[in-house]
Amino acid sequence: MQNTSDRAIKIHTQFQGKLEVQSLVPIENADDLSLAYTPGVGAVSRVIAEDKTQVKNLTLAGRTVAIISDGSAVLGLGNIGPEAALPVMEGKALLLKQFAGLDAFPLVITATEASDIVRFVKQVSPTFFAINLEDITAPKCFEVEEALQDIGIPVFHDDQHGTAIVVAAALLNAAKAVGKNYADLKVGIVGAGAAGLAIAKMLLGANCRASSCSIVESLPRVSDVVVFDRQGALYRGRKGMNVYKQAVAGISNREHSIGQPEEVLSGFDVVIGVSGPGSITKKIVSGLAEDSIVFAMANPDPEIMPEDALAAGATVVATGRSDFGNQINNVLAFPAIFKIAHELQLPRITMEVKVALMKSLAELVESPTPEEVIVSPFYPNLVEILVEKTKQKIAH
Amino acid sequence: MQNTSDRAIKIHTQFQGKLEVQSLVPIENADDLSLAYTPGVGAVSRVIAEDKTQVKNLTLAGRTVAIISDGSAVLGLGNIGPEAALPVMEGKALLLKQFAGLDAFPLVITATEASDIVRFVKQVSPTFFAINLEDITAPKCFEVEEALQDIGIPVFHDDQHGTAIVVAAALLNAAKAVGKNYADLKVGIVGAGAAGLAIAKMLLGANCRASSCSIVESLPRVSDVVVFDRQGALYRGRKGMNVYKQAVAGISNREHSIGQPEEVLSGFDVVIGVSGPGSITKKIVSGLAEDSIVFAMANPDPEIMPEDALAAGATVVATGRSDFGNQINNVLAFPAIFKIAHELQLPRITMEVKVALMKSLAELVESPTPEEVIVSPFYPNLVEILVEKTKQKIAH
Repeated sequence: MQNTSDRAIKIHTQFQGKLEVQSLVPIENADDLSLAYTPGVGAVSRVIAEDKTQVKNLTLAGRTVAIISDGSAVLGLGNIGPEAALPVMEGKALLLKQFAGLDAFPLVITATEASDIVRFVKQVSPTFFAINLEDITAPKCFEVEEALQDIGIPVFHDDQHGTAIVVAAALLNAAKAVGKNYADLKVGIVGAGAAGLAIAKMLLGANCRASSCSIVESLPRVSDVVVFDRQGALYRGRKGMNVYKQAVAGISNREHSIGQPEEVLSGFDVVIGVSGPGSITKKIVSGLAEDSIVFAMANPDPEIMPEDALAAGATVVATGRSDFGNQINNVLAFPAIFKIAHELQLPRITMEVKVALMKSLAELVESPTPEEVIVSPFYPNLVEILVEKTKQKIAH
Repeated sequence: MQNTSDRAIKIHTQFQGKLEVQSLVPIENADDLSLAYTPGVGAVSRVIAEDKTQVKNLTLAGRTVAIISDGSAVLGLGNIGPEAALPVMEGKALLLKQFAGLDAFPLVITATEASDIVRFVKQVSPTFFAINLEDITAPKCFEVEEALQDIGIPVFHDDQHGTAIVVAAALLNAAKAVGKNYADLKVGIVGAGAAGLAIAKMLLGANCRASSCSIVESLPRVSDVVVFDRQGALYRGRKGMNVYKQAVAGISNREHSIGQPEEVLSGFDVVIGVSGPGSITKKIVSGLAEDSIVFAMANPDPEIMPEDALAAGATVVATGRSDFGNQINNVLAFPAIFKIAHELQLPRITMEVKVALMKSLAELVESPTPEEVIVSPFYPNLVEILVEKTKQKIAH
C-alpha cells in the first residue's frame, strides 16, 4: 500500500481537485433555457433588484460559504502562496458539504496586506451567506477578521475559533477525566499565533477587540493561562508584542511569570502546543502537576509524540492526528458553526455561540476518560446533534 | 400554463438558485479524510508550492471559470447591482457546464470603479483557469477587460466578444442568403455600448487598444460600418465620445456621415440593433437597400419586431429571442471559447481565435436562407464541433 502522500497526490490528479459545480436544473431544450437563462431569469433579477434580501431565497447566495485564503499560513507549511493553499481550501469546502450539507467554494487570492483581504471579502460578500477565512498568518488574520465583523454576514476564521472551540471542549472533558475542576486549571499555551491567542481567549471567556479584552463573567473559564511565543511568556508590559498579544497579556499570566515554558509551567495542569514539533519537551511535561493534560496540536508532527508525553508523566494526551486517539480536529466545529449561522441567519458568530457549541461538543462524550476526551468526526449525525444542542443553549 | 417569468421564479425558489458544489471524492471514514484533507492534502500543497503550474493539474483551478459581474448592466435591466445580477451569472455558469462540460462559479461583487474590478479579478485569478466578465457597463467594461489581458489567464467579456462573434457569423450567412458579398456590406449599428463597439471591431477586422485600432489585413471585413449612439453617428473628431468610441470612429464611417440612423442608413445593406426597443424604426428599414438584413438584438423586446421589419421590406431578420427563428444568442459562442482556451491552454483570447470561431459557427449552416442564418443552441454536439473546427483553423 502506498503512503498517504502518494495516495493523496494520486486522487487529486485523478479528479483534478475534489470539487465540481453541478447544475440543479436540466437544460435540454429552448424552454429550459428560457427559465434558467433569458428571458425568464430577468424576472428573477427584477425581484431581487426590488428587494435585495430575496437574493438569499432565489440564488446560491442563500446557502453557500466562501472559503477564502491568501495562502500565508497553510497547515504546517507556512507562507506557500494562494495556489498551494487551494487543495486545502477545496478540502474544507468538501467537508462543509459532506458534514453540514452546505455548498462552499474556495477562493485563493493574491493579497499581501490585511486591507487587501478585507476589501476583497467585502467586494465578494453579495455572493455568499458566510465567509470562512482560512490559513491566514497572524497577526494579519486578527486585523482581517475584526474589520469584517459588521459586513452583515458571518466572517469566521476557523484557524482561530474552530481550533479554540474544539480544544476547549476537549479540555472540559479532560478535566473531568482526571477529576479536576475546569475553573481551577492552570494552562500553558506554547505558540502565540492565530490558534494560540484564540484558545487563550476562549479558555478565559474573553471578548477581545484589537488592543483590549474583557472577561465575560457568565462564560466558563480556567484559573489562569500563560501564552508563550519564541521570546517566552507573554505578560503585561513585555516588549516585542503586537497589539493582539498585548490584549491577551492583559487578561492572562496573572502571576506575571517571565521566561520559557520549562521554567514557567512547573506545577501547571495543562500544556497546549500550537507551535511546531519539538516545542513541548519531556522536561516540560514531567514538571507539570499530577494528572496532567497535554494537547500537542501541530500537524503532521506534534510538539511532542504521545508516547513521549505519556512516558514523561502525562495522563491525558491529545493531538491533531487521525492515527492517534483523542483527535482534536476543526472539522468537529466549523461545519456546525456554519450550519447554525445558516439556520439562525446570524449576521456574525458571537462568543456566546462559540461557547454554546463548545459545551455541546463536550457533552457528546458522556463519561470522559483519559483515552476519550473528544468524539470522532464520524460520530453519527454529529452536525445535526451539535446544531440542535447549540440552538437550545442559545435560546436559553 | 404559467408565464415564463412566474415559472422562472418558481424554479429559482425551489432550488434556491441553480448551481451546487459537489464532492468528487467520498468522505466516509478517517482514511478518506486523511487523503482529501490533512495530513494527505499537505503533500499536494507541497507539490504546488514547489511548482505553481501544478495547481492546474491538482485542483479545480485547472478546469474552472469565474463568472464575474458588478451588476452594472444586467440584461436590459441596467445597473441593478450585484445581488440582482447573481441569477444571470448562475445561469451562465450552468450553461458552461451544460454545453462545454466546464465547471464555473459566479462571483458578483460590489465595485464602482474599473480599478476595483481589475484588482478583484487579479486577486482571485489563482483560483481559476479563465475569467468571464459579464454585464459590466460601458465604457467601464473596456477599461477592465483591457487591463486584464496580460494576467496569464484568459479574461473574456462575453457581452462584447460573444455577441460580436455570433452576430458576425450570422451576418456572414445572411450575406450569402441574399446573394451579397460580405466584403461589400455597408452596416449600421444602433447602440455604442459594449456590444455595439465590439461588433463594429469584429465586422471591420480590427484590433483595438483603448484609443487606437488597427485593421488586420488578413481578417474578413465588411465595406463600412457606421455606429450610432444617442447623439447620432460616430465620426472622427465628433464631440462627446469616450476614448473607446473615438477608437472605433477612427476606423469606421469612412464617408464621415453625420446624423441619426434614419438619415444616414439610407441605402445601407444591414442594420444591427444593440440598444433598446423602438430604436430601429420602420422608416429606417424601408430606407435600406434591396434584400436588406435586420438584426434586432435587444432582449426581451427587440429594437423592431420581426413582423414589422419584414413588412418594412427586410429580407433577413434575426433577434435575440428564442421564440423567433434566427436566434442570435451568446450561448453559441462562449462555451466554445472557454473550451478552446482550456484545451489549448491559451493565456488570452486573441482576435484570431474569435474570427476562427466566428467562421466555424457560420459554417454550421450549410446553405443559408433568410430563415436560417444561424444554428440553434441545441445543434447536436455544437461545442465539440466548434472546438475542433476552430482549432484546425488556428493551426493553419
